[in-house]
Amino acid sequence: MNSKLQWLRNKMSSLDLQGLIISNPVNIKYLTNIDAEGILLLTRKENIYITDARYIEHVHSILTLFDEIIVYDMNDVSKEDYENFFMFCENVGFEENYVTYAKYKEYIRKYKINSLVETEHIIEKQRMIKDEEEISNIRKACEITDNCFSYILKYIKPGMTEKQIADEIEKYYKQNAEGTSFETIVASGENSSKPHAVPTDRKIQDIDIITIDMGCKVNGYCSDMTRTFFVGEVPEYVKPIYDLVLKNQEQTIEEFKDGVSTRQLTKMVENDFKLNGYDLVHALGHGVGMEIHETPFINYKSDTLLKENMVVTNEPGIYIPGKFGVRIEDTIQITKFGSIKLTNSEKNYIII
Amino acid sequence: MNSKLQWLRNKMSSLDLQGLIISNPVNIKYLTNIDAEGILLLTRKENIYITDARYIEHVHSILTLFDEIIVYDMNDVSKEDYENFFMFCENVGFEENYVTYAKYKEYIRKYKINSLVETEHIIEKQRMIKDEEEISNIRKACEITDNCFSYILKYIKPGMTEKQIADEIEKYYKQNAEGTSFETIVASGENSSKPHAVPTDRKIQDIDIITIDMGCKVNGYCSDMTRTFFVGEVPEYVKPIYDLVLKNQEQTIEEFKDGVSTRQLTKMVENDFKLNGYDLVHALGHGVGMEIHETPFINYKSDTLLKENMVVTNEPGIYIPGKFGVRIEDTIQITKFGSIKLTNSEKNYIII
Repeated sequence: MNSKLQWLRNKMSSLDLQGLIISNPVNIKYLTNIDAEGILLLTRKENIYITDARYIEHVHSILTLFDEIIVYDMNDVSKEDYENFFMFCENVGFEENYVTYAKYKEYIRKYKINSLVETEHIIEKQRMIKDEEEISNIRKACEITDNCFSYILKYIKPGMTEKQIADEIEKYYKQNAEGTSFETIVASGENSSKPHAVPTDRKIQDIDIITIDMGCKVNGYCSDMTRTFFVGEVPEYVKPIYDLVLKNQEQTIEEFKDGVSTRQLTKMVENDFKLNGYDLVHALGHGVGMEIHETPFINYKSDTLLKENMVVTNEPGIYIPGKFGVRIEDTIQITKFGSIKLTNSEKNYIII
Repeated sequence: MNSKLQWLRNKMSSLDLQGLIISNPVNIKYLTNIDAEGILLLTRKENIYITDARYIEHVHSILTLFDEIIVYDMNDVSKEDYENFFMFCENVGFEENYVTYAKYKEYIRKYKINSLVETEHIIEKQRMIKDEEEISNIRKACEITDNCFSYILKYIKPGMTEKQIADEIEKYYKQNAEGTSFETIVASGENSSKPHAVPTDRKIQDIDIITIDMGCKVNGYCSDMTRTFFVGEVPEYVKPIYDLVLKNQEQTIEEFKDGVSTRQLTKMVENDFKLNGYDLVHALGHGVGMEIHETPFINYKSDTLLKENMVVTNEPGIYIPGKFGVRIEDTIQITKFGSIKLTNSEKNYIII
C-alpha cells in the first residue's frame, strides 16, 4: 500500500473509524492516482474502488499490485455486496463537506450503515502538508509562471484587449505546462477595481494600470501569482496604495512560518490597511496544491496554525470601486523559520 | 419579477413551500442572470441575493428594478437577519442534490429552520423545458459545432497528435463562440475504445479511426456532438459495428418525441445491441442546456417522459476494449411528433 493510504489508515484507527467512504475525486486522485469517476471504500481489510464500465480499462492501466486496491465495475456489485462492505464496522466516516445531503441519505440506505460520521476534512488536512515530490511539482509550476509573466510583459502593447492577453497566457501555459490552474484574470483600468474580474474586450491604453492573476499546472499541481503593473507611468495617486500593499505583502512573507496563526496574519494586514483608511475585502491567502484553492484558508475567520511544508499564497489587495485596484500575490512554501518564495517575479513598480 | 422566478414562486405555492434557499450557481444564473458567488433566498415576500464584497459591484451592474431582487453584502447581514428571513415559513425548501451535508446542517442552524425540506430538482426540472431564446442559443451553438467539424475534417493530417487536433477545435470555439462546453475528446486508433478518452500525444496514422466528441457555448448554452470517422479507408471489421450504431442512432431520432419514456428508448437500443452481441455501456443521452449534462438523463435507470422543447443528446456507442470504438451523437430538440436535429453533420462513412 502506498504511504498516503497507509497514513490515512493509521489516522482512521486513531479516530475509531473502521471504514471510510471517499467520494471527492481530488482526494481519490491524491490517495490512489486514479483520475476517473468512482468511489473509494476503505473497509476493515480492503481498499475497494468502484467505477463504471467506461473507466475500468483506464483504472487498471494506472494501478499496480502494490496499490492493493480491488477494482469493481459497479454493474457487478449487488445490493448484498454493498451491505457487506461495512458489515462489521461500528463507525464509518464520510466527507460531509463534499457529499450532498441526498448522497448522505443514499449511503446510509445502500451500505446499511448505523453510524455514518463526519470526518472534518480528514484528507484535505492530510493534503495540507506537501511531500518533496508535491513541492517539486508546485515549484516547477511557479517557475513556468515567472517565465510566462516575463514573456507577457514584453507581449502587451496598447490597443490589445484583456481577452487577447488572457488567451496568450493560456497558450503559453498549454505549450509549457498542463494549461492554466484557473481562469486567468486580466483586469485593466477601472476593471482592476474588481478583485475577481473576468477578461473583457477593453483595450489597453497608453497610460494604464493592469492586474494579472495567473497560474498553471504541472503534474496536477498548481501555481498562483498576481502582479499589478503599469503602462507608460505610475500615476501619483496609485503610488501610496501600491506601496502599502507591497509593504504588507513583503512584511508578511517573513511572518508566514511554522506555528503562526492564519487569523493573526490576516488581522495584522487588515489593521495596517485600516490604519491607512482601507479595507482588506478578501482573504489574505489560501493553500495551493492539487486544487488552486485548498486548506488552509488564510482569513480572519480561519484558525489554522501554519506548518512546515504547507504551500500557500500571500495576496493582500486594495480596491477603489470604479477606479482601480492593486493586488500582489506570491505562492510560498512554509518552513520552520519563515517562508520560501516559489514565485519570484519583480514586485517593485513595473512599467511597460 | 421575471417569468422564470414567477413560475418558480407559483410552483412553490403548489408544493406548500413558503421559502426556498437556492445555492446552485447554475440555477441562480438561470433565474436571475447573476453569475457570482452567493445565495438566493426566496422568502415569503422578498427575493434576496447575498454575496460578498468582491461581487457587489458586478451584481448591481446586472440587475434592474424589474428583477425585484434585494442584494446584500454578507458582511452586513447579522445573525438576527438570518434568523428573520424565514421566520413565518412552515416549510423551506433546499437543493438536497447540490447542498452538502455540512451545509445542510449549517442552514438549519443559521436560519433557525424547523422544516428544511428536499425539493427534488425543482429548478432542474423547470430548466428541462427550454423557451425560444434558450433553444435559439443552443441552435447557434450547434451550427457553430457543425462548422467546426467541417473545418477540422480538412485540418486533420496523418502525423498530427490528438492533442493538436483538440487544441485547434478549442481555438475555433474561442474565436467563434464562448469556448468549449466540455473538454473535447479526440480519440484515435485503440484510444477510441475508451468512451471518455482524453486527447494524447498519439499521432494520426495513414489508415486510422478517429472519434471526436465536441461542443461549444453560446450565451451560456451548450452544444454536444460526436462523430467517428476514418483516415484512408473504413476497415471491413469496423463496418458492421458502425452500421449497427448508426442504424440505432437514426431509428431512435424518430422515437425521441413528446410522451416517450427515456427508459424505453434506452432499452430499445440496448436490446438491439445485445441481439448483435454487444453492450450499451453508457447512457443513451442526456439533457443539454446551461450545463452540458443536465436532466433528463436517458438511461435504463431513468424514468422521465420526454416533453416538447426538451433538448437532449442521442448518442449510442459500441466499444471493443483495446481495439476501437464507434459513437455517433446529435443534439436534438423534442417536439410533439418527433425530434429536430440541431447538429447536422454527415453520418454516413466519413473518410478523410
